[in-house]
Amino acid sequence: RVNGDRLWDMLMEMAKIGPGVAGGNNRQTLTDADSEGRKLFQTWCEVEGMTIGVDKMGTMFATRAGTDPEALPVYIGSHLDTQPTGGKFDGVLGVLGGLEVVRSMNDLGIKTKHPIVVTNWTNEEGARFAPAMLASGVFAGVHSIDYAYARKDPEGKTFGDELQRIGWVGDEEVGARKMHAYFEYHIEQGPILEAENKQIGVVTHCQGLWWLEFTLTGREAHTGSTPMNMRVNAGLAMARILEMVQEVAMSEQPGAVGGVGQMFFTPNSRNVLPGKVVFTVDIRTPSQEKLDRMRAAIEKRAAEICEGLGVGCSVEAVGHFDPVTFDPTLVGRVRGAAERLGYSHMDVISGAGHDACWAAKVAPATMIMCPCVGGLSHNEAEDISREWASAGCDVLFHAVLETAEI
Amino acid sequence: RVNGDRLWDMLMEMAKIGPGVAGGNNRQTLTDADSEGRKLFQTWCEVEGMTIGVDKMGTMFATRAGTDPEALPVYIGSHLDTQPTGGKFDGVLGVLGGLEVVRSMNDLGIKTKHPIVVTNWTNEEGARFAPAMLASGVFAGVHSIDYAYARKDPEGKTFGDELQRIGWVGDEEVGARKMHAYFEYHIEQGPILEAENKQIGVVTHCQGLWWLEFTLTGREAHTGSTPMNMRVNAGLAMARILEMVQEVAMSEQPGAVGGVGQMFFTPNSRNVLPGKVVFTVDIRTPSQEKLDRMRAAIEKRAAEICEGLGVGCSVEAVGHFDPVTFDPTLVGRVRGAAERLGYSHMDVISGAGHDACWAAKVAPATMIMCPCVGGLSHNEAEDISREWASAGCDVLFHAVLETAEI
Ligand SMILES: NC(=O)NCCC(=O)O
Ligand SMILES: NC(=O)NCCC(=O)O
Repeated sequence: RVNGDRLWDMLMEMAKIGPGVAGGNNRQTLTDADSEGRKLFQTWCEVEGMTIGVDKMGTMFATRAGTDPEALPVYIGSHLDTQPTGGKFDGVLGVLGGLEVVRSMNDLGIKTKHPIVVTNWTNEEGARFAPAMLASGVFAGVHSIDYAYARKDPEGKTFGDELQRIGWVGDEEVGARKMHAYFEYHIEQGPILEAENKQIGVVTHCQGLWWLEFTLTGREAHTGSTPMNMRVNAGLAMARILEMVQEVAMSEQPGAVGGVGQMFFTPNSRNVLPGKVVFTVDIRTPSQEKLDRMRAAIEKRAAEICEGLGVGCSVEAVGHFDPVTFDPTLVGRVRGAAERLGYSHMDVISGAGHDACWAAKVAPATMIMCPCVGGLSHNEAEDISREWASAGCDVLFHAVLETAEI
Repeated sequence: RVNGDRLWDMLMEMAKIGPGVAGGNNRQTLTDADSEGRKLFQTWCEVEGMTIGVDKMGTMFATRAGTDPEALPVYIGSHLDTQPTGGKFDGVLGVLGGLEVVRSMNDLGIKTKHPIVVTNWTNEEGARFAPAMLASGVFAGVHSIDYAYARKDPEGKTFGDELQRIGWVGDEEVGARKMHAYFEYHIEQGPILEAENKQIGVVTHCQGLWWLEFTLTGREAHTGSTPMNMRVNAGLAMARILEMVQEVAMSEQPGAVGGVGQMFFTPNSRNVLPGKVVFTVDIRTPSQEKLDRMRAAIEKRAAEICEGLGVGCSVEAVGHFDPVTFDPTLVGRVRGAAERLGYSHMDVISGAGHDACWAAKVAPATMIMCPCVGGLSHNEAEDISREWASAGCDVLFHAVLETAEI
């Protein structure tokens, strides 16, 4: 078993960096706080005798050597970046859980044939820079590094400039590393494990996603002196699109979601009808067929809504992944480890996207989940128990040991 | 007749200060650009031999002396501040039109019994600090100066601090001045005069307004892993309220408008359902009865919408004025002047709010309007012709002369 108290202490220590406003964290990617968090992680890894590599996307790879010089490493990864009002565990648990696995190996003097590489992927959240899982996407060859560097935050700063600014541009070519296997340990971020009273989620799939960024063009005009029939009202078109997205998602129940988290009005003045409304629709489902159908329905109906109001409508896909099926052998090892350790478990589909989804393109990959209180995540009130954290880490430890071979 | 070319030159000169991004202006209240615009106006007034007073709200009063030391002044006022993406004429025409009236009097050696005071009211637009017409509202005793100083812009800066910062806190008590009459010359900001091919709008009334700032409280949660039935979706509630506001306004046609110009999502991240959505509903109509009914309907139905979604809903009225009837004698003088000068004219109701609405509480007041292209305002593309500007200014000149007595 791993040392659950030590894991918890690391989690609490990391949570001091980039504190939020309500007990959680604001350690968004490529901020000064992100850099500070990286340094703390690096220090801890070096104490364990690990060597740190950094690639051109700023992703950190901390390696514990294996006994066979030919053997490809087993990767354990997740992310230290957070949402602007994020929790203390989303992502962090997976990185520090990986480090705790290494610390436990060191405690027990365990040597593995395959090296172990604990990984901190840059910009998993996608909060500052869309899309999410950006660095793992470049690693897997889904995006070019030029595309990644050119991503802009809402203030117009680019990913490339900000990575440079915080001093974490590494020298490794992105994606040059080869993986024997990839594991990711994460909080569920959904309500099922807690409701079903299970300690471990054995993650078999991840649902697919589209982020559709709508730019609606209305006519800026006075809210008081512009008659109703002369308005080109982009705000009203937006409202109708939001309602329609809700309808589309409800019509695909169960197993589909749709909503909007980001919204910008321009010029955003109380007495000016907006000239421009920009927002991102987030739709997800584990079914490829549903995902395609939802996207098509939303784009078609949004175009109709806008046409009816004379509003201009353009759509850019700023994030996308298809539904993922994780590697059955690794999934079996996770299930087996939970079983052997006596933890209650069930198979689950990940509702959120994870770096594991991109890693699965280039290596056998899977995930382990622990419950979180009320299924709440992307909220500073996100919470897990020490016991949950530690049980999932035990399962990670055992599944990794089996894969890295003693 | 006034010197229309000189008026136009002043308008173009002022428009160089705080340029916009599309040919208009961004000279929002209490910015450095606002201060620069005030200085230019002051210089021009001083060249005409006027004396400048400034009150504690930063409102500027430029006085041309009258012949009777006992006679109260005739005020000509409007505003030099603009929307973030505003036009070159909204407000500016009224202030510089007033100055052109004084320049014409000086040219012609006209002396008036009553002094003439050209006034630049602070924060008419209400774009940075709600409510609109803030300084004239304090002048008329509608708001306290403490209330005004505490108003905050979206960045949290207060009106009081920003007025201090730009160095325009005057020493006059606000509202201490007494007015013989108040005139305001403004672009229509609506489509009627142009459509009816009239040069002059004789403004008999101004429609009433409510600005209802809604704060909707949802639950921040992951857009992917939070099932539809577990969402407390403040974004969806907002969408339904916008559609409902549209319905309410349409049900009161003709002569009512409703819309939303300002919107904030928190935390405004693509994969987080918003914990908070703040937006301001702007409703207006010339009928007191309709105004009351619309407000009541919107508040009631919004509460129902939010209740149905489990979303918290609070409403703050951040702007309000009742419908205004302007002084019949002054209105008659404007109509008479247009008639005598041979300008086509019609009676109109102002769709926008103006400082004249508050001045009407403490003095006989009225307004004169000129057409604007396509009825467009609160848009950098706002436009008027040199001839329109000059015709309205002629009418202002004559109505003021009659009131100030030669
Ligand atoms: N796990 C997680 O919250 N990832 C962020 C990307 C997403 O929106 O799913
Ligand atoms: N005239 C004008 O645009 N005033 C701003 C206040 C309002 O929204 O009516």
